[in-house]
Amino acid sequence: MTDTPRNLYDKHAGTLERALAAITERGYWSAYPESPSPRVYGETAAAEGEAAFRAYLNGRFPLDQPGTDGWIATEASPFGVELAVTYPHAEAGALVEAAVAALPAWRDAGPQVRAGVCLEILARLHQHVFELANAVQFTSGQAFVMAFQAGGAHALDRALEALAYAYAEMTRHPGEAAWEKPAGKGEPLRMTKRFHVVPRGIGLVIGCNTFPTWNSYPGLFASLVTGNPVIVKPHPRAVLPLAVTVRYAREVLAEAGFDPNVVLLAPEAPGEALASTLALRPEVKIIDYTGSTAYGEWLEENARQAVVYTEKAGVNTILVDSTDDFAGMCRNIGFSLTLYSGQMCTTPQNVLVPAGGIGTDQGHKSFDEVAAGIAGAVGKLTGDAARAVELTGAIVNDGVLDRLDEVKSVGEPVLESRVVEHPAFEGAIVRTPAILKLPADAAATYGKEWFGPISFLIATDSTAESLGIFRSTVGERGAITASVYSTDEKVLDAAEAAALDVGVHLSCNLTGGVFVNQSAAFSDFHASGANPAANAALTDGAYVASRFRIVQSRRHTS
Amino acid sequence: MTDTPRNLYDKHAGTLERALAAITERGYWSAYPESPSPRVYGETAAAEGEAAFRAYLNGRFPLDQPGTDGWIATEASPFGVELAVTYPHAEAGALVEAAVAALPAWRDAGPQVRAGVCLEILARLHQHVFELANAVQFTSGQAFVMAFQAGGAHALDRALEALAYAYAEMTRHPGEAAWEKPAGKGEPLRMTKRFHVVPRGIGLVIGCNTFPTWNSYPGLFASLVTGNPVIVKPHPRAVLPLAVTVRYAREVLAEAGFDPNVVLLAPEAPGEALASTLALRPEVKIIDYTGSTAYGEWLEENARQAVVYTEKAGVNTILVDSTDDFAGMCRNIGFSLTLYSGQMCTTPQNVLVPAGGIGTDQGHKSFDEVAAGIAGAVGKLTGDAARAVELTGAIVNDGVLDRLDEVKSVGEPVLESRVVEHPAFEGAIVRTPAILKLPADAAATYGKEWFGPISFLIATDSTAESLGIFRSTVGERGAITASVYSTDEKVLDAAEAAALDVGVHLSCNLTGGVFVNQSAAFSDFHASGANPAANAALTDGAYVASRFRIVQSRRHTS
Repeated sequence: MTDTPRNLYDKHAGTLERALAAITERGYWSAYPESPSPRVYGETAAAEGEAAFRAYLNGRFPLDQPGTDGWIATEASPFGVELAVTYPHAEAGALVEAAVAALPAWRDAGPQVRAGVCLEILARLHQHVFELANAVQFTSGQAFVMAFQAGGAHALDRALEALAYAYAEMTRHPGEAAWEKPAGKGEPLRMTKRFHVVPRGIGLVIGCNTFPTWNSYPGLFASLVTGNPVIVKPHPRAVLPLAVTVRYAREVLAEAGFDPNVVLLAPEAPGEALASTLALRPEVKIIDYTGSTAYGEWLEENARQAVVYTEKAGVNTILVDSTDDFAGMCRNIGFSLTLYSGQMCTTPQNVLVPAGGIGTDQGHKSFDEVAAGIAGAVGKLTGDAARAVELTGAIVNDGVLDRLDEVKSVGEPVLESRVVEHPAFEGAIVRTPAILKLPADAAATYGKEWFGPISFLIATDSTAESLGIFRSTVGERGAITASVYSTDEKVLDAAEAAALDVGVHLSCNLTGGVFVNQSAAFSDFHASGANPAANAALTDGAYVASRFRIVQSRRHTS
Repeated sequence: MTDTPRNLYDKHAGTLERALAAITERGYWSAYPESPSPRVYGETAAAEGEAAFRAYLNGRFPLDQPGTDGWIATEASPFGVELAVTYPHAEAGALVEAAVAALPAWRDAGPQVRAGVCLEILARLHQHVFELANAVQFTSGQAFVMAFQAGGAHALDRALEALAYAYAEMTRHPGEAAWEKPAGKGEPLRMTKRFHVVPRGIGLVIGCNTFPTWNSYPGLFASLVTGNPVIVKPHPRAVLPLAVTVRYAREVLAEAGFDPNVVLLAPEAPGEALASTLALRPEVKIIDYTGSTAYGEWLEENARQAVVYTEKAGVNTILVDSTDDFAGMCRNIGFSLTLYSGQMCTTPQNVLVPAGGIGTDQGHKSFDEVAAGIAGAVGKLTGDAARAVELTGAIVNDGVLDRLDEVKSVGEPVLESRVVEHPAFEGAIVRTPAILKLPADAAATYGKEWFGPISFLIATDSTAESLGIFRSTVGERGAITASVYSTDEKVLDAAEAAALDVGVHLSCNLTGGVFVNQSAAFSDFHASGANPAANAALTDGAYVASRFRIVQSRRHTS
C-alpha cells in the first residue's frame, strides 16, 4: 500500500492527538527521543547519519528546484572542516512564482491532509536525525550531543508543537455548519455555511547561524500546515541543515502527490541581499526571522505586507539574592555560561549580585566569593580540553571573537577567556567563557547584548537595586530568559512581579539538572512576545492564529 | 448578598459556557433577544429607555473621569434632533496615566474574574438596551428597529462572541502545570510551572459614526477581558452610545472593587486629533479601528508600537448570472440597497450583470429588465415615506450627500435618489438609493467605494467577465461581503473559488429573509482579514490571540 495523503493523516493521527493533549497540559512530553544512544536509535544510525552528511561535502546538494541559475557555496565550518557543499541558486522571482503556483492545491487539500503530510515530513526528518545533527554541528559550531538534541530531537518537538497549535486553531470551527433561525410562527430561516481555511500567501523563513533548525522549524511548519507554501532562506553560513530539511520535505510532498515547490530553499549569494528582496515581495505574507535586532527591526518596518515574527537580541539576566545551595547555584550558572560558549539566545549575560555579598548554606559569601564560585565552576567544566569542547562546541563566527577582544577593556576580569585546542578538529575555533565584574552604573556596557561567551557580574547596592536594574535593562532591551536565586519568598515574589511587568519568563533557584538556557517543548514557552527581544512566543496560539484566515460561504438549505 | 468579582463569574458562567459552545459550533445562537417587542422586554422598557436617553440631552453626561479639563459637545443628529450632550474632555496624557495605573490589579485579577466583570457589564448594558438603541439611532441615523438590533442586541452578541474567543484563548493552558522528566535511573527532574496571562498594555478603541457600538464592542471586550485597560475614543458625531457604554462599564467595575479607569471615554474636541495622539502613545499596545481606508492605513503605518486591527473601505459586489426566483432576487437586492440608506460596510455597491441578460424562472430577462426589477423593488420599499424611513433611517453626514451629488454625472441613471420628508422628525435628512448603469470598462468609477445609498449595475460581456471584475476589484480594493445568483452549480463553484482567492465571504442565491449585508453573531464571520477591506475578522482566534502574552515562571517542586 502506498502512502496517500489521507493515509498519512491516519498514520500519524496518534502522534497529533498526543501533541494536541500536550499543548493543553503543558507538562512533560516529547515525541522524538533526545538521546543519541544506540540503545534508542540502533547500532548503525550514528555512523549512517555521519556518512550521509559526509556524502554531501564537496559536491552539489541534491535538490531539483525551478529557476536554478547557478550553484553557490557559502559555508565555513566553525570546526575548520571543509564543507564545500554547493546549493542551487535562483532569483527571488522564480522562487516566488513557483511557490504561488503550488498554493491552490496545497490550500484545497485542507487541514487534515496537510497535517498528515507535515507529520510525515517530521517522521522523515526524524529518520535522518543523525544526518541533520551532523549538518547542524558543522555549520553552527554546536558540539555533537547538543546538535543532536537542540538541532534534531528538540527542533522536531518544537515543530510538532507549532503544528499542533496550528491544527487546533484551524479545526476549532467545523468545515460546515447548519444554521436555523426561528422566525416567529413562520418557517425558520435555514442556511448551510461552509468555512474554508485560507492561507495568507507565501511564507518566508529566514534562518540563523546558531540554531538553523530549532529556530526555523516552528515557523516553517506552522506556515506549511496552515496552507502557505514556504521559501526557506538559510543563513549563508548554515545552509546545510535547512537544505537537508527542504530535501526531505520536497521528497514527501512529491510522494504524496503535491507540487514539491510547496517548500523551496533560497540560498543567498554573498552580497545578494536575497532575504530583503524576498521579504518585500507582495506575495510574501508571513515572515519568520531569528537574528540581529537591526535586521529584525528592518523587516518589521519594511515588510509591511506581511505578518512578521522576529526573535532578536536581548539581555538575559540572573538575580542573585541568597541560596540554600551555593555549590549547586555556582555549578548551574557555570554550566549555563559554558554551554555552546554562551552562543544561545537564552544564555545569561548579566548576573546581578549585591556588593555586600549574599547569605548561603555555607554562610555569608562576599561578592568576590560568589564571583570565584561561578568562575570556578566554569573553570572545572573547561579545564580538560576533551571534555570542554563537548560542552562549548566552537565559535560560530568572527563577530564573537571580535567581541571577546573588545570586552577585555570594559571591566575587571573575573575569568579570562582561553583558547582551547580541539582534540579532534585541528581548525576548530574554541574559546572558554569570559566573565567580568562591573559596577551598577556601567549600564552603558551591560545594558546591551554581548553575544557570545561573555557575561558580567554586576555589583549592586542591594537586591532592591538588582530588581531595578533587571526591570530597566529587560524593559528597554528585552530578554528571552531570566532567573533568580533566593531563599526569601518575598524576593521570589518580587522577582516574579518584575518578570510579569517586563514580560520575561523566570526560572527560580535552578541548582540541579535544569538550566535557564534550556526550554522544554510542550511545556516551557520560548520567548514571550512581551518584551523587545521577540515580538512573539515561538509556539502558542498567537504564533499560529494569524497564519490563515477563514473565508465562508453560505446558502439556503435546500 | 453583594456581587463580588467571584460571584459575577458564577452568575454568568452559564452564558459563557453556552457562548463557548456556540463559537465552536457556529450554528444559530443569540444571547440577547433582537426583538424590541414589549412581549420580550416588558411594557415599560421602551418608554424608560427613551426617557433615559432624553435625560442626557442638553446637559453634562454623568461621567466622573480623571483629568477632566473641560466639557465638549460635538454631535449633530442625522434626525435633526438637538442633542447638546456635553462630555468630559481630558488630555491624552491624563487618560493614559489613569489607564496605566489601573492595569496591575486588572491583570492580576486573572481571566475568570475579568470574564465575570465583563459579562456583568454586558448584562448591565442589556438592561439599558433601549437607552443604547436611542443613542445609536439619533447619532448614527439608523432607524429605531435597526438601532435596537445592530446597535443593541447584535452588538452585545458580538461582544460576547469576542469575549468567548478571548476566554478560550486565555484558558487553553492551565495556570499551573507539573513537569516531570525521566532521568534514566536517577530521580526524575520535577518542576512546577506557572503560566500568567499578561495584557499587552493599554487598548485604544476608535469608534465610527455609523455603527458606534457594533463595530467597537468586539475590540473593547476582547481587550478588556484579556487584561488591557481600554480608552474608548468615539467618533465626534457618535459619542453618546459609547459614553453610555463607558458609564455602565465604569459602574460595574467600581461595584466589583476595581479602578473604574479600566475603561475610559476620550471625547475629541474639533481639530484636536486626539485619536492620533493616543494612537502614538508608547503605552497603547492595541488599537481597534473602523473607518476610512486613509486613516486606517495611517494607523497601520504609524502606530508601530501597537497591534492594529482595522476595518476600512471596500467594494462589495453581487454577481448576477441567473436565478430561479427573479422576484425574490430583486426584492432581496432591493432591500439590501435600501437598508440604512446603503450606509453599512456590508451594503453591496457593484452588481455585475451580463449585458445580454440572464435566465430566470420568468424566462429570459434583459439587462434593463434586471435593472428595472431591482429599481422597482427599491421603489416599492421607499414609496411610502412613513414605511421608507423605518428602513432607510437618515443620512449620517454631509460626505454622503456630496457623493450623491457627485455620482449623478458618472453614469446612466437607473433610479434617482429622492428626498423623503420624515413624518416624525422635521430636520431628518433622508435620501432613497441611487442606482446607475455603468459599462464594464468604467472601473475607474466602480473600482472604489462610494459610501452611501449608491450602487452600480455593471454590464459585462458574460459571467466569466463578471468573475474577472469581481476578482480584480475585490482583490485590489477589498470587500466585506459578496454574493452570487446562479442556477448553475458550476457558476456557484467558480464564484466560491474566486471568493477564496480574493478572501471574501460569499452568500449564494439570497432570495428570502437573509440579506448579504447582515451577518449573524456566533455563526457568520464578519470581514475576513484576507483582503484590503479589513486586516482581521471581527471575531475569531486571530482577533484575540495577540491581545495578551503568556509569561511563565518555573521552580523545582519541593
